[in-house]
Amino acid sequence: MPTHHVDRRTLLAGAAIGAGALITPGPALARSGDLAALERAVMAGRDDSIRRIQEWIRTPAIAAENRDMQKGADYMAALARDAGFTDVEIVPTDGHPGVFGVLDSGAKRTLGIYFMYDVKQYDATEWSSPPIEARLVDKPGFGKAIVGRGAVNQKGPQATFLAALHAFRKAGRKLPVNLVLVAEGEEEIGSPNFRQIVTKPHILAALKRCEGIFLPASWQNSQGAVDVNLGAKGIIELELIASGEKWGRGPKKDVHSSLKAMVDSPSWRLVQALQTLVTPDGNTPAIDGWFDTVRPLSAREKALIAENAAHDSEADMKQGLGVPAWIDDLPFARALERLASQPTVNIEGLVAGYTGPGGKTVLPARAVAKIDMRLVPNQTRADCEAKLRAHLDKRGFTDIEAKVSGGYDPTETAEDSRLIRAELATYARQGVKATLNPRLAGSWPGAVFTSAPVSLPAGHFGIGHGAGAHAPDEYLVIDSTNPKVAGLEKATMAYIDFLYELAAIK
Amino acid sequence: MPTHHVDRRTLLAGAAIGAGALITPGPALARSGDLAALERAVMAGRDDSIRRIQEWIRTPAIAAENRDMQKGADYMAALARDAGFTDVEIVPTDGHPGVFGVLDSGAKRTLGIYFMYDVKQYDATEWSSPPIEARLVDKPGFGKAIVGRGAVNQKGPQATFLAALHAFRKAGRKLPVNLVLVAEGEEEIGSPNFRQIVTKPHILAALKRCEGIFLPASWQNSQGAVDVNLGAKGIIELELIASGEKWGRGPKKDVHSSLKAMVDSPSWRLVQALQTLVTPDGNTPAIDGWFDTVRPLSAREKALIAENAAHDSEADMKQGLGVPAWIDDLPFARALERLASQPTVNIEGLVAGYTGPGGKTVLPARAVAKIDMRLVPNQTRADCEAKLRAHLDKRGFTDIEAKVSGGYDPTETAEDSRLIRAELATYARQGVKATLNPRLAGSWPGAVFTSAPVSLPAGHFGIGHGAGAHAPDEYLVIDSTNPKVAGLEKATMAYIDFLYELAAIK
Repeated sequence: MPTHHVDRRTLLAGAAIGAGALITPGPALARSGDLAALERAVMAGRDDSIRRIQEWIRTPAIAAENRDMQKGADYMAALARDAGFTDVEIVPTDGHPGVFGVLDSGAKRTLGIYFMYDVKQYDATEWSSPPIEARLVDKPGFGKAIVGRGAVNQKGPQATFLAALHAFRKAGRKLPVNLVLVAEGEEEIGSPNFRQIVTKPHILAALKRCEGIFLPASWQNSQGAVDVNLGAKGIIELELIASGEKWGRGPKKDVHSSLKAMVDSPSWRLVQALQTLVTPDGNTPAIDGWFDTVRPLSAREKALIAENAAHDSEADMKQGLGVPAWIDDLPFARALERLASQPTVNIEGLVAGYTGPGGKTVLPARAVAKIDMRLVPNQTRADCEAKLRAHLDKRGFTDIEAKVSGGYDPTETAEDSRLIRAELATYARQGVKATLNPRLAGSWPGAVFTSAPVSLPAGHFGIGHGAGAHAPDEYLVIDSTNPKVAGLEKATMAYIDFLYELAAIK
Repeated sequence: MPTHHVDRRTLLAGAAIGAGALITPGPALARSGDLAALERAVMAGRDDSIRRIQEWIRTPAIAAENRDMQKGADYMAALARDAGFTDVEIVPTDGHPGVFGVLDSGAKRTLGIYFMYDVKQYDATEWSSPPIEARLVDKPGFGKAIVGRGAVNQKGPQATFLAALHAFRKAGRKLPVNLVLVAEGEEEIGSPNFRQIVTKPHILAALKRCEGIFLPASWQNSQGAVDVNLGAKGIIELELIASGEKWGRGPKKDVHSSLKAMVDSPSWRLVQALQTLVTPDGNTPAIDGWFDTVRPLSAREKALIAENAAHDSEADMKQGLGVPAWIDDLPFARALERLASQPTVNIEGLVAGYTGPGGKTVLPARAVAKIDMRLVPNQTRADCEAKLRAHLDKRGFTDIEAKVSGGYDPTETAEDSRLIRAELATYARQGVKATLNPRLAGSWPGAVFTSAPVSLPAGHFGIGHGAGAHAPDEYLVIDSTNPKVAGLEKATMAYIDFLYELAAIK
């Protein structure tokens, strides 16, 4: 039954008769003669694959809480060894360790794999199913799903990729490409030490042999569509802090608000500093020199955005976000161009003094703006941090602290790289609508790979569906009841097909 | 043992022998022949007086939590009746009820008494002694004190005044003045309905017969000194709220921060609106027309401030507040002039988006600045609210909500009123250093009395010591071990002396 989409019943029927056709195989996979054996191995490994995701979720490592990080790294290393990686090592950093391993199958080409073994913090009281029990729960409209922290971000998709490797072992087949795995445990705190891992000489040498590097992902939407991002914005996350302590004016601790008549206010100082950072409409950074290195969109990038604007539903997007109008009432295509091309200075949060219900007559000693600044090529995090400091200093705000907690440079990956072309070919074969997006407005540590010295194409690949990253009730669909969305076995087979595609593509 | 200050041992010795001299009586009290009998009654009533404070604390009424308000009003009415007030009634308002009563002793003059029967909210976990158990606890440097919510603000001092009335009853003596009592249960939420009480025709008529009105207070500092305030600043407490909901731009719920490139930000809008409200240094209101009605300090007011500046320790004040320098590095006297004379716009708190540790990549749908604005004569709350609205509207911030939660007009009481002169005479006799302060920088509902139609002198009076209003471990000293600070019986006798003084003063 060759079909692009199999629902759960079809899939289970297929398992029962040991038949293939979970996916439409690419020519390389079809020619290899491995298809039937690999499909059987994937089906036979189903219970192990589910258990692998669940057990990993039940072993949380949370960098932000310094929770079980060594255990998390050890567990990551064990998962890699079990899947066939050799030379697996825990790689120490100034922060939490990473994991490195290789899988040499004697193939011509090598592919890099990026994993994160840490997960975001969670508040168990907000979950309808306990966040580290990884229960199987019915998700109406999608099917049976594993609910737990890390289910989609990123243990579930990563374990699905590992399931593909186990299928090769079980089927006694050789991988069509060699693999290089680099994993970190600090993704959720902004990868502050990841560069230390990839620039270790032997790891860098291994990465330099790769065609590209990818992070397994399960981001099909309810229509089965995915994005292929040719890059991502960078980010700097920071707190701007005005305080009597640093200022040498105003109070060192909160005092009664009546004293405002004779005591300076750090809160007002923060407000005055903040308003210099953007244009009066709040929409364009006004930090000195901010646009000096900004590269405008290319004609090709604009064309891709216009195409996406024509296909996406602006009304749905506005409805989903609760946003009645874009900045300056821009038409959709122009708003999407802005999304891809414009650096931003955003206020994530404001915190000063009394924050409870009603009021309290205090003059706060400290005021904080939580800020994220999105960067575009060719801005760099280091240059932008220096420009922000210079901008504040020039205006006399030398006392206002810019406490950077993390960030990434922007990334770019060429549309004609083998990595991107193999992704597009694989998606096309599976009937998955893949939208070429010139630049993800979100950010990920990909710049560690795309910039020197690693300088590799980098992106995400995978089918299947999950949601709730950083939120309660995060999930990954295992048995899909949505014919447009892949379940666990089909997602596993798509990784296998992708590896063959990457091995064969011109 | 005539002495201005009695310590606890002296006091108890006095009680044992039934002797007088708790205070230095004024000529009127001395002439009355009532001194010895009243002192004996105060001493004999000591246990009842302590129990009265404790039982009242154990009956909390908290308007902010709508907690036991009817019970609180009933209790207030019962306390008034027990102390000899007649025609006591619960006075309904649009909010929580007040209490009114009179005590007609056939005297020539009448004095108004203002009580509040509500207390501030509390968090019992922050207290070292349970907040509504009213335990007797040793306060090093002060002596035995009742610890509980309302101990100093304001049940303790009010009950001490009631103890004075009980002493008159017990001694079979007539009060030298008639009394009019008005009590409210909404002081801690800004007295939103108190004007309804005092303007009821029969209550207003009773108040119009008064020489003045006062709130019993126990605010001696460790040196025994008190302030006599000739007025107080007014206040408007409000939230300034920018939201996608009201604006019709930006998001209606928090969205991912990467969308800042195409979505407007209510937080930036709030920052831009805020910065128009004050001068760039944050120290002077810049709201259109704000100073139109501000009356400058008189020569007498400046002279009083200069005198206070000469006597107070600037170094101690800076040290206590943790403030290294006043606004514009002003000298102390000029800073105190500013404290008394300048209207302020203060940020009490800022709340938007993510307020926890670290960052979170959201674009918040709503941003709030908690503001208090202190007013000076002849500003009024109503006029200032209208000016703020007009200022925001003129700059296009029609969507920014100014949600006023409460406030008071400024108050003024003439230095030559009988109320103030009687206070000063009584303090002087007790050896209590009384500092004439032209204007309290804090705020209280006194404007309800000092402004039309009531138009009475209004202030605070009392000796004794307590602290911790609105804070954990609020207390009132009962048995003073500090020779400069009055304990319960001496504070009670001071009220008695004050009533005689007010009856006799020219």
